Amino acid sequence: MEEKEISQAVVARLPRYFRYLGELKEQEVERISSGDLSVLMGVTASQIRQDLNHFGGFGQQGYGYNVDYLYHEIGRILGLDGEYRLIIVGTGNLGQALANYMNFEKRGFVVKGLFDISEGLVGKKLRGLEIMHINRMEQFIKEHKIDIAVLTVPKERAIETAEMLVHCGVKAILNFAHVDLNVPDGVQVENVHLSDSLMKLSYNIKRYEKNVRGNVSGVRKEG
Amino acid sequence: MEEKEISQAVVARLPRYFRYLGELKEQEVERISSGDLSVLMGVTASQIRQDLNHFGGFGQQGYGYNVDYLYHEIGRILGLDGEYRLIIVGTGNLGQALANYMNFEKRGFVVKGLFDISEGLVGKKLRGLEIMHINRMEQFIKEHKIDIAVLTVPKERAIETAEMLVHCGVKAILNFAHVDLNVPDGVQVENVHLSDSLMKLSYNIKRYEKNVRGNVSGVRKEG
Repeated sequence: MEEKEISQAVVARLPRYFRYLGELKEQEVERISSGDLSVLMGVTASQIRQDLNHFGGFGQQGYGYNVDYLYHEIGRILGLDGEYRLIIVGTGNLGQALANYMNFEKRGFVVKGLFDISEGLVGKKLRGLEIMHINRMEQFIKEHKIDIAVLTVPKERAIETAEMLVHCGVKAILNFAHVDLNVPDGVQVENVHLSDSLMKLSYNIKRYEKNVRGNVSGVRKEG
Repeated sequence: MEEKEISQAVVARLPRYFRYLGELKEQEVERISSGDLSVLMGVTASQIRQDLNHFGGFGQQGYGYNVDYLYHEIGRILGLDGEYRLIIVGTGNLGQALANYMNFEKRGFVVKGLFDISEGLVGKKLRGLEIMHINRMEQFIKEHKIDIAVLTVPKERAIETAEMLVHCGVKAILNFAHVDLNVPDGVQVENVHLSDSLMKLSYNIKRYEKNVRGNVSGVRKEG
């Protein structure tokens, strides 16, 4: 099936469909209507039908979606039918946590190498892989045809490290450094800015408290 | 200054403004035009003017924004003039990485307690804090008026742990478990789903390669 170019907003929602369908599959559910899926996922049925229509639509009116088929099709569309070779650059706490996070491999994201510049870390082993010095990275990326670099170096070194990664030919960077990377077209970047998530929380805590206070004082005035 | 209710899309962009303005401040830049800021941030000047207009607007035509003022106002709007008391629930690799990530404190997010259920972890110290058993969590949250829980327990225990956190009165959860939490109104949740970020990358890698192949075969046909 040929899919059309779809918006990044829809792409961003696909992993969630994939996750829910995977869970339905584990529960041996064979078919599900857009209505039931909408209750489960907390989005409207029309949103679901619209999103899945981007791929030509998999549902039949009054008959629902075939869970297994839809799960595999979305997986294929997300590129999860392939294998991706990863390196982790920066093996501090976060890099080590990610190296140990086995769930990635299940989806075809295989960690092939670990890199750092710290003398205390180079030579150590994590999950059977020896942490290598970053000056061996260029050769390694080329020899092992690395697709994705997970970047967990400190902010101060992130931009130059990303330039090196692009130069070596990685296709994508998962960036945890709290800085925007400037990469050429054709290199994909996803940012995970944890501080930004915390700031969104603090904004929403504050807004909620203000609304609650507002309501309370409104009640008082009427009393 | 009173700000109006603004969309979550704008809220999501505020931390990025805050970050860029912080960097300009460090470089001792006093004023910046929406045009210059737009080049720096890679968004249109009209987007910047629109976003900042939500807060009454801080700029003067032809004079630019006062960097220090705008930085502090956005910080205040994001609730960063307050202090937030955090606990980390789940001190595996990821929880330990987050506990060691000092940058949060600079912004007023202070880690007050660490919790786990593993015998191998309870009693150990991280950054001067002793990891406590999760059965001490309820009392701790109440005694220390905890605002935010960072949830890094395995997916299987995430939902019940979140329910416990809500019951104990936390205001917000930063959720790293790969599952959606169902919390009442008034409890804020931000999800950090790392697998979703990887899936977006694999989608974009595949799409880019398909486009490139498409163009190449297009050229061949013409040749």
